[in-house]
Amino acid sequence: MKRIEYFKRGEQDPAPLEKSVLRVVRFNEIDPMNIMWHGHYASFFEDARVALGDSYGIGYQDFYRQGFIIPVRRMQIDYLSPLQYGCEYEIKARLFYTEAARLDYDFTVLDADGSVHARGCTVQLILDKDQNLLLAKPAFFEAFCQKWREGKL
Amino acid sequence: MKRIEYFKRGEQDPAPLEKSVLRVVRFNEIDPMNIMWHGHYASFFEDARVALGDSYGIGYQDFYRQGFIIPVRRMQIDYLSPLQYGCEYEIKARLFYTEAARLDYDFTVLDADGSVHARGCTVQLILDKDQNLLLAKPAFFEAFCQKWREGKL
Amino acid sequence: MKRIEYFKRGEQDPAPLEKSVLRVVRFNEIDPMNIMWHGHYASFFEDARVALGDSYGIGYQDFYRQGFIIPVRRMQIDYLSPLQYGCEYEIKARLFYTEAARLDYDFTVLDADGSVHARGCTVQLILDKDQNLLLAKPAFFEAFCQKWREGKL
Amino acid sequence: MKRIEYFKRGEQDPAPLEKSVLRVVRFNEIDPMNIMWHGHYASFFEDARVALGDSYGIGYQDFYRQGFIIPVRRMQIDYLSPLQYGCEYEIKARLFYTEAARLDYDFTVLDADGSVHARGCTVQLILDKDQNLLLAKPAFFEAFCQKWREGKL
Repeated sequence: MKRIEYFKRGEQDPAPLEKSVLRVVRFNEIDPMNIMWHGHYASFFEDARVALGDSYGIGYQDFYRQGFIIPVRRMQIDYLSPLQYGCEYEIKARLFYTEAARLDYDFTVLDADGSVHARGCTVQLILDKDQNLLLAKPAFFEAFCQKWREGKL
Repeated sequence: MKRIEYFKRGEQDPAPLEKSVLRVVRFNEIDPMNIMWHGHYASFFEDARVALGDSYGIGYQDFYRQGFIIPVRRMQIDYLSPLQYGCEYEIKARLFYTEAARLDYDFTVLDADGSVHARGCTVQLILDKDQNLLLAKPAFFEAFCQKWREGKL
Repeated sequence: MKRIEYFKRGEQDPAPLEKSVLRVVRFNEIDPMNIMWHGHYASFFEDARVALGDSYGIGYQDFYRQGFIIPVRRMQIDYLSPLQYGCEYEIKARLFYTEAARLDYDFTVLDADGSVHARGCTVQLILDKDQNLLLAKPAFFEAFCQKWREGKL
Repeated sequence: MKRIEYFKRGEQDPAPLEKSVLRVVRFNEIDPMNIMWHGHYASFFEDARVALGDSYGIGYQDFYRQGFIIPVRRMQIDYLSPLQYGCEYEIKARLFYTEAARLDYDFTVLDADGSVHARGCTVQLILDKDQNLLLAKPAFFEAFCQKWREGKL
């Protein structure tokens, strides 16, 4: 299967930021088909997204303290191979650079052998506390993106 | 926002099958942004998909009894407007006709006023019990599709 | 098995208030032992507790609007017979009268044949918004209890 | 508050077995009161119980391979202090020795400062695959208990 590309990286764009978290398939996550229930992947993506956001100071709470919320506007998940009970796996999140006032993440779920079990993406918008959609990045996030472009993160 | 079309209906294809379920936003489904947590929508889609499948005799268990499983291969969710605590809402599933050995569902989440809060889709493949992908519909499902084409469901 | 009594009703106490909600066992609630995962019952209890609280105007949000929160301090669940996929069941909540500043609920989970699958209880304390434990009922709730004692609900 | 003792250790009984797992409070676990939703603790207990069971070869799957299932018959949870978003915490499981054909676990949820946020217990019965309740321990588990009594684990 061809590698799925959810976001296109522009030639001038800095490399995506990356962060992984590790988990083990839990008993209550297994469905009657004896595989990880497909609905749980949203929380896996969130775990990795939160880990990346927090490690760079651009997490949910960082935006919130600045007066913004960042709801998920779209999520896509491609299930390639099911996870079995007890399996250890890694969720790798990548944040893609974009000029838009948006957070574009993609995700890869892979096991210890490097087999890819799922891929996916989320797109988050940025709203102010009156629920108005931001068309430009808020100042603290633009400053962050500036450093990112300059390779100074 | 333009209406999203996840699947294209061919000119000769019979109309999609429809089924709705009703729910109320529950306390523990609300996230720290005080809206329905985005990860719960997979279970809403499943509720409506299961209701449709069961009502037509083509549900998860019907396939299973015939020796097949129908795992979700792809899911996409578009979040348009968040659900608040206590809100009553409808999840409408539609199954689209396709020649492929596949189940194509789309979903609409709407409240009592008819406001659309989310849309999405799932694509399910059909596997036999040795995990082999079916390239043609199994006989019982082809017979069902025949009736569907003939308007005899 | 002897009927479990979680709370003792005093001779002068008014009868417990009752409310039921109906549900169907969902696909993703089934665990690898092919029964309802035991961890889901907390949400069943909550559904019935919320339904009772809301119908009498003493729900989570009613307390909140008056400046109080009512966290669960203790929960006990007795699992008598597992629920299977697709089973329709009722969750019956009963609120017991008490002189204490507390909400004492018990719960019965039973199917359409009247078979009891689980019983349980929750005890909720009442805190003000500074997290101080209330030793007496807040005025609006004492007024409610007064009516209850007088049979005027 | 007095330390809760869910199980009484007999004078001749070997010390309980212990195992801990570490977790971090996740975004989607927070409820509208801005604390960990009380219903999630069942999964925390399960994580620690599974870790202990697996590490000693007496886990869910070990019983299953021998022809037995070990459903939870009772669970009790005492909530002492809520967990906040982002908090790192430890779930410590202890398995108590008993002559009965039963698994008696207690649990302590504590943060990095050693503050206890919750305690609780589960009692599991042992059934054979025809759902008959075992009155005596199965041979492989009795052999395990023998080693436990002799201090040879």
